[in-house]
Amino acid sequence: MSEPLRLGIVGLGRAFMLMLPTLAHHPLVRLVAAADPREEARWQFESDFSRADAPARSYDNVEELCADDGVEALYIASPHQFHVAHVRLAATYGKHVLVEKPMALTIADCQAMIEAADAAGVHLLVGHSHSYDAPYLKASELIRSGRFGRARMITASNHTDFLYRPRRPEELDTAQGGGVVFSQGAHQVDIARLLGGGLVSTVRATTGRFDPARPTEGAYQALLVFAEGASATLTYSGYGRYDSDEQLGWIGEMGQRRDPESYGMARRGLVGVSTPEEEAALKNTRTYGVAKNSVAPLSAALGHNHFGPITVCCEQADLRPLASGVMVYADDRRWLEALPAPTVPRAEVVDELYAAIRSGIAPLHSGAWGMATLEVCLAILESARTGREIALQHQVAPG
Amino acid sequence: MSEPLRLGIVGLGRAFMLMLPTLAHHPLVRLVAAADPREEARWQFESDFSRADAPARSYDNVEELCADDGVEALYIASPHQFHVAHVRLAATYGKHVLVEKPMALTIADCQAMIEAADAAGVHLLVGHSHSYDAPYLKASELIRSGRFGRARMITASNHTDFLYRPRRPEELDTAQGGGVVFSQGAHQVDIARLLGGGLVSTVRATTGRFDPARPTEGAYQALLVFAEGASATLTYSGYGRYDSDEQLGWIGEMGQRRDPESYGMARRGLVGVSTPEEEAALKNTRTYGVAKNSVAPLSAALGHNHFGPITVCCEQADLRPLASGVMVYADDRRWLEALPAPTVPRAEVVDELYAAIRSGIAPLHSGAWGMATLEVCLAILESARTGREIALQHQVAPG
Repeated sequence: MSEPLRLGIVGLGRAFMLMLPTLAHHPLVRLVAAADPREEARWQFESDFSRADAPARSYDNVEELCADDGVEALYIASPHQFHVAHVRLAATYGKHVLVEKPMALTIADCQAMIEAADAAGVHLLVGHSHSYDAPYLKASELIRSGRFGRARMITASNHTDFLYRPRRPEELDTAQGGGVVFSQGAHQVDIARLLGGGLVSTVRATTGRFDPARPTEGAYQALLVFAEGASATLTYSGYGRYDSDEQLGWIGEMGQRRDPESYGMARRGLVGVSTPEEEAALKNTRTYGVAKNSVAPLSAALGHNHFGPITVCCEQADLRPLASGVMVYADDRRWLEALPAPTVPRAEVVDELYAAIRSGIAPLHSGAWGMATLEVCLAILESARTGREIALQHQVAPG
Repeated sequence: MSEPLRLGIVGLGRAFMLMLPTLAHHPLVRLVAAADPREEARWQFESDFSRADAPARSYDNVEELCADDGVEALYIASPHQFHVAHVRLAATYGKHVLVEKPMALTIADCQAMIEAADAAGVHLLVGHSHSYDAPYLKASELIRSGRFGRARMITASNHTDFLYRPRRPEELDTAQGGGVVFSQGAHQVDIARLLGGGLVSTVRATTGRFDPARPTEGAYQALLVFAEGASATLTYSGYGRYDSDEQLGWIGEMGQRRDPESYGMARRGLVGVSTPEEEAALKNTRTYGVAKNSVAPLSAALGHNHFGPITVCCEQADLRPLASGVMVYADDRRWLEALPAPTVPRAEVVDELYAAIRSGIAPLHSGAWGMATLEVCLAILESARTGREIALQHQVAPG
């Protein structure tokens, strides 16, 4: 039963790079094939993942990868706008799918993906999102145990330099899925939904576009009201000023040690970049097949991944998920529900995919779950645009 | 021009105790008279504030105090439900008024107070609220300077043990002005309005009553949307679990050193208290004329008063008001706009009252300002009750 999943990769770009430490080192997965238009990425993939008895395959088109009989499941990490076509293709060939967030840019596309997977009888998971991170899963488990009463008020904020990391032009265009609501809201909303019971009734939100040179949402605030009485306030800013990792002992999103003295680094990295083409080229220097040491040995992580400071007020305790576990603040004492340090980062993604495919355990991060999170993100944009509270209709509870 | 204000006190209870270090030590104010039904409080007042050449007077009814020719202004710190009658009485006798927050419990009462003060030609100020604290005033000044663009997103949260401090029964009854929305929202909303430009368009909120033994709001969350495009998320919990002073270097609301190890102290203080009468009696042990050392010498404060962690995202910088000043996070560097340590706590309240009365400078915390803050608090309760977003109509900008 511990035969590793034979995984194929659609898109050897930045999302793949971020999942590479997981996919290269998790014992329950083996990378066997990939598709990407860039020759240097394909060459690198074959070089990194071929074994003496089993060469890794690479393709310059996705359908050939989908047709590969040695592939059981596909990790679809192509640009957002291709997700729906690639999920359909994968399902047609009977492959299970892990599709990157945001799942898609419209509810109709999400529905098409879910229908394609259902019709083919394959599993469809959405992720990585930070709601896979062990501390949030642990907090959710504590809430669902009933020990502390119902979760009632979630306060989540995250202040990062997201908007000043090197971007391709479409990442700064909301119509093409750019901006922080699609890319970062997908994390924060996913976590809030996990902790608040999943079923968001209404969304009221504002968005901020503070920099005319990067004309997409760089910030948002939202109040989510849940069907079962919980609520959540969300604040996100990607403008690279106050950094909320300060509140978390300078442990970063990936569980790594941050340098408190590296203020303003993202903006400085863009000094001298004067055209969108130059910026895209700068981004490409960090992509697979170009950056050095794409598959590095694992170093001991300081802690789990996280997505900023989050406090959950339950009826009988407050919970604070941290990189080391979950702090529980009860009436008479507080304690850390410690989690073992991660050996493989983001192992939870592969664990959930593996459990679905090998053991038939319904995944938390199903297509329906991902669609519900996208619905909240779209409602944030709509509420900000119209100045109204938006009622939702595609919400699902955690499985 | 530095002749101290001759101040009379209406109500020698808990609010007075909290203002006592200010009123006893600020060089621009002198306590000359007071009214309270409790004989021991009156005796204590005369004992504390009589001078060889000028005995302090005390009265067992408010009208006699109002009629006292030696009194220029009254600090009205009676229970909320008496504010409107006491302000009217003060105005009738031509006294300026500083009335404690919440100003009143209804808009009609606020209007009656404003009209009475206008008709009599006296100043009406509302406070203390924490929006008088120097770091928030400094942040507001930085915003209004225009150096950092407009304020766009305010994130405020405060997790305290408010609900478990000893209470009289009416403090646990929302209809009588009990609960955290009236008492603590008055601070947090005031600060958010100061930083966001004052004019709240809409409020969407939820409230929490997590403890059936204390059946009033102990927590709330709100999203305020401002006329000029800013928004604010507010979270408050008074349930005595997670303590957000942790984020502020364990400096407390009064600028004092907190002990991080004193977890659960408020709840433990109520152990053994089994009736509302016993709890009211416990509260009374801390009131004026009963507690020891009512007028203590000033000790050096660690920092300014504050009301929890607050971050303001402006278009070109983030601001974080702290007990020591305002941290400014600009594009290329961050710095502290340091404030001198306070010599007299909450001196800003007397400063604003003095400037109004002696120099005719329109106060920020006018009756109209206090009414606008109450309107937001009432909207928080109404939004939570009805599940709707509430539009406001009595908002004013900072003067």
